[in-house]
Amino acid sequence: MLTPLLDRDTLDAAGLDRLIEHILSGGVHGLFILGTTGEGPSLSYRLRRELVDRTARQVAGRVPVLVGITDTAFVESVELARHSARAGADAVVLAPPYYMPEGPPELQEYLEHLLPELPLPLYLYNMPPLTKVPYQIETVRWAMDQPGVAGMKDSSGDMLYFNRVAALLGHRPEWTLLIGPEELLAQSMLAGGHGGVHGGANLFPRLYVALHEAVRAGDFERARDLQARVQQVAGRLYRVGRHPSAVIKGIKCAASCMGLCSDFLAEPFHRFREPERRVIQQALEELRAVVEA
Amino acid sequence: MLTPLLDRDTLDAAGLDRLIEHILSGGVHGLFILGTTGEGPSLSYRLRRELVDRTARQVAGRVPVLVGITDTAFVESVELARHSARAGADAVVLAPPYYMPEGPPELQEYLEHLLPELPLPLYLYNMPPLTKVPYQIETVRWAMDQPGVAGMKDSSGDMLYFNRVAALLGHRPEWTLLIGPEELLAQSMLAGGHGGVHGGANLFPRLYVALHEAVRAGDFERARDLQARVQQVAGRLYRVGRHPSAVIKGIKCAASCMGLCSDFLAEPFHRFREPERRVIQQALEELRAVVEA
Amino acid sequence: MLTPLLDRDTLDAAGLDRLIEHILSGGVHGLFILGTTGEGPSLSYRLRRELVDRTARQVAGRVPVLVGITDTAFVESVELARHSARAGADAVVLAPPYYMPEGPPELQEYLEHLLPELPLPLYLYNMPPLTKVPYQIETVRWAMDQPGVAGMKDSSGDMLYFNRVAALLGHRPEWTLLIGPEELLAQSMLAGGHGGVHGGANLFPRLYVALHEAVRAGDFERARDLQARVQQVAGRLYRVGRHPSAVIKGIKCAASCMGLCSDFLAEPFHRFREPERRVIQQALEELRAVVEA
Amino acid sequence: MLTPLLDRDTLDAAGLDRLIEHILSGGVHGLFILGTTGEGPSLSYRLRRELVDRTARQVAGRVPVLVGITDTAFVESVELARHSARAGADAVVLAPPYYMPEGPPELQEYLEHLLPELPLPLYLYNMPPLTKVPYQIETVRWAMDQPGVAGMKDSSGDMLYFNRVAALLGHRPEWTLLIGPEELLAQSMLAGGHGGVHGGANLFPRLYVALHEAVRAGDFERARDLQARVQQVAGRLYRVGRHPSAVIKGIKCAASCMGLCSDFLAEPFHRFREPERRVIQQALEELRAVVEA
Repeated sequence: MLTPLLDRDTLDAAGLDRLIEHILSGGVHGLFILGTTGEGPSLSYRLRRELVDRTARQVAGRVPVLVGITDTAFVESVELARHSARAGADAVVLAPPYYMPEGPPELQEYLEHLLPELPLPLYLYNMPPLTKVPYQIETVRWAMDQPGVAGMKDSSGDMLYFNRVAALLGHRPEWTLLIGPEELLAQSMLAGGHGGVHGGANLFPRLYVALHEAVRAGDFERARDLQARVQQVAGRLYRVGRHPSAVIKGIKCAASCMGLCSDFLAEPFHRFREPERRVIQQALEELRAVVEA
Repeated sequence: MLTPLLDRDTLDAAGLDRLIEHILSGGVHGLFILGTTGEGPSLSYRLRRELVDRTARQVAGRVPVLVGITDTAFVESVELARHSARAGADAVVLAPPYYMPEGPPELQEYLEHLLPELPLPLYLYNMPPLTKVPYQIETVRWAMDQPGVAGMKDSSGDMLYFNRVAALLGHRPEWTLLIGPEELLAQSMLAGGHGGVHGGANLFPRLYVALHEAVRAGDFERARDLQARVQQVAGRLYRVGRHPSAVIKGIKCAASCMGLCSDFLAEPFHRFREPERRVIQQALEELRAVVEA
Repeated sequence: MLTPLLDRDTLDAAGLDRLIEHILSGGVHGLFILGTTGEGPSLSYRLRRELVDRTARQVAGRVPVLVGITDTAFVESVELARHSARAGADAVVLAPPYYMPEGPPELQEYLEHLLPELPLPLYLYNMPPLTKVPYQIETVRWAMDQPGVAGMKDSSGDMLYFNRVAALLGHRPEWTLLIGPEELLAQSMLAGGHGGVHGGANLFPRLYVALHEAVRAGDFERARDLQARVQQVAGRLYRVGRHPSAVIKGIKCAASCMGLCSDFLAEPFHRFREPERRVIQQALEELRAVVEA
Repeated sequence: MLTPLLDRDTLDAAGLDRLIEHILSGGVHGLFILGTTGEGPSLSYRLRRELVDRTARQVAGRVPVLVGITDTAFVESVELARHSARAGADAVVLAPPYYMPEGPPELQEYLEHLLPELPLPLYLYNMPPLTKVPYQIETVRWAMDQPGVAGMKDSSGDMLYFNRVAALLGHRPEWTLLIGPEELLAQSMLAGGHGGVHGGANLFPRLYVALHEAVRAGDFERARDLQARVQQVAGRLYRVGRHPSAVIKGIKCAASCMGLCSDFLAEPFHRFREPERRVIQQALEELRAVVEA
């Protein structure tokens, strides 16, 4: 979920409530806040806590709320996890600390230290383009045996990796394996994945839910059709800028064009201005037919 | 400078004072805290502020104190800069926000927003292996024209880059250009660099000061000899472990073996245990002759 | 297809014939020689020509023969393409020249120069881990409009890329889009891919053909089961060594254990020795049940 | 040395002779042909042999001729080495085979197989940006003990690496250690390097020889001045294009503007056209004062 902002340290509270209702109305099964698309690492700790509080209050138990606690500082991750538990969130999500790259045994020992401090179930968040190191397959296998670890979101975009994790699920069937890139949702479920956590669901939640349901129902013809629509959303909205931030900028700009919330981005990034905003506006109009068909 | 720790959120205050006195006794010209070797990103904000306070008090103006404020969150960088000013520090040091990589214009706009908020002069900290993006040469040239930017520490290890920055110094002669990797100090000064910020100076400050003085005096024979000793320090102490953390672990372990401070490392890393500690201990004994000769 | 060798410049001619018959007996739809698994770049030009001749003669038109002509030297690529046409091969396959990385317009201009010189249809071979540069989506779109380009093999392992190429197929339906990594065959076909070119088909051609047929028939339950078997083949045979060459070494060692051909590898690589060979032998025995069930 | 070409498979023979005489007149100590700047990998084997023959004949023993034999195919490297010996060349130069990356033990075993086949002394050519793998320090240390290995050219641009190799020279003082990037010549010699192999010496050989002599004479003031001029050559001529090929294109274009030889580049690259050629022409005019002062 996006983090609607009025300025670098002020929530767009009304926009947040509207965005949450918009997403929930699409039938999603959970909300993940303070992830990459949520600009988690760019926000002050004060604002992160405020977002957790307000989201949990607004959602009010209708779906589980997962909170990103990824941080380079162990103490801050734990503190945010405790705050999340107090606020009524349901789980926390953690990518590897992302300043100096850890070796695999270092990362596992870090998790060994962290797990006893967490008051909520943990989802691993695999995001090597941004954290430099992945959770190695061996680390995932170990994590499956830890009672505090409930599942994983894999945003690597590497289906070879995803398939190897999926192949381990027989080992722990109640584990939840989710995929990040929405262009891969149907394929990931074919390999045994359970669903996805997708930026585009801020905008068109029903489309992603419908795709998920089609694959679950084994209706691959419909899945192929819906997945192609998702591909168009990604193709039109996520590649307007030239930098990796283009995805977040595109989604936030589109949410603003749709009247959901402000498009302010916390530094080091900034919102799309013209002509990018006009491109997004135009794309949205053309996507309407694609998404609603 | 290392950050001496008793545990993940407790300063080793006595060790810190001893370490500061040890380093200052070697004749260094400044102290840089909360950098990479100082485990800045691994520490809670509370502890970072405590370290700033205690270091500034102990140094008491004898040399300038520079504080690392690198952060993914703009608001937290500014807050730490303000705290540093209040505590009496002399400058702040900033690498690019290191979660999602910025494009060059994004990074420059980020600096444009940040500079007016900083109460102290800024040194750019170029560290692309850990921040993913460098300060592009064009960004450095622009920064040289900003009154709030006092200089740069280049830890890229890329002499082609360093030489290109050095070639710009004619443009702004009062700018300070420092190098990170101690194995490159003499070479960097040949190209016009002014000095270095080196992890090994936690242990053998006099050696690094002597090398600096030899190059400044144009005594290249002595410089070559002293640089070769520095190479031995690096070769024996920084490559004992297999992960990138080996450098910090080696320095902190050596500082502990020398009785300077605790070797506790904040997560996600941990101190050297046996047999690594024995290897460092042995290396230290053999280095004594090298360093003191 | 592997290139069976007796030594670095001598074909294992009997092994080659046996291997070809073994693969064809599995029902495959074509043979790709002198690719990565075929050690193309490690072989002398003389031996490459001999392999083309002998393979074309042995196959004798039963299935199409595709010849890898990837080279850093334009003249040598063209020469091998001409030789392939004379020998009766059906198409050539080309990855980007892989010494100095080309910019996208350079790579497209290279293809513009090359296509008129080729006497056979061309398949693009996307292999960025080894060639440094991919065929950009824009280059592929352009290539689809060139009459001399018949299709593409994507070995990037990047499903986001593959899906974007697949989305272009509506534009040129007779184009053939194949995937390299066998762990992704079913998923690639879900996105519109037509099939795969897989190292494991040297060993168990029937398994890969069966998987292909299951997906084409829309029998996703059977596809999932067969794909899981392929995953086991890859897991047991391709990760025994520690270097990227482990895949080729594993397949060639297994082919030798199965009595198909010699396991000699041309420099810079070398065959598995003990204990790796024993591991492969053991894996093969356990895979028999998996593959034949 | 550049390879002057009239078209992709035709030497510019007159240009070659002029270029050789121009370079030798500057006082250089050797010629390296068929390296990266010489477009070695882009040329047919026939043309490579012709170049070796003609260069050796034209140089006629005035300075040593070193021939690049880097290849992905062992047999072709050996064949070219033998041809070079017959033609009267003095040594061969070899980077790691550059298609599939070798693990360090694989690369060392490759050298073990290759050395007995070579009729001329070998220089290692470290070029990891193009070969993917470096010669590890351990491999270099091993190579220093092999009688057939005479030295190394390090084009990595990594001074930390270069310094570590230089520190091993005490072990084998007759070894020759050369640096590739001309911006690093003075600094490399400060660390113990013996000289450089520089693209810019095609154009201004006297400048590079003068810089080499200044450092050898310990005249660091003059060295700094000459090195700054070299920096200007590199800055003006090597960064006109946007792709890695910009360096070769710039040198070859400048050689053409100076009337030395044709600027034809073999595929996959092509010569600078307008407006790049005009930029190079303009830069050359402004560099004249810099180079000749």
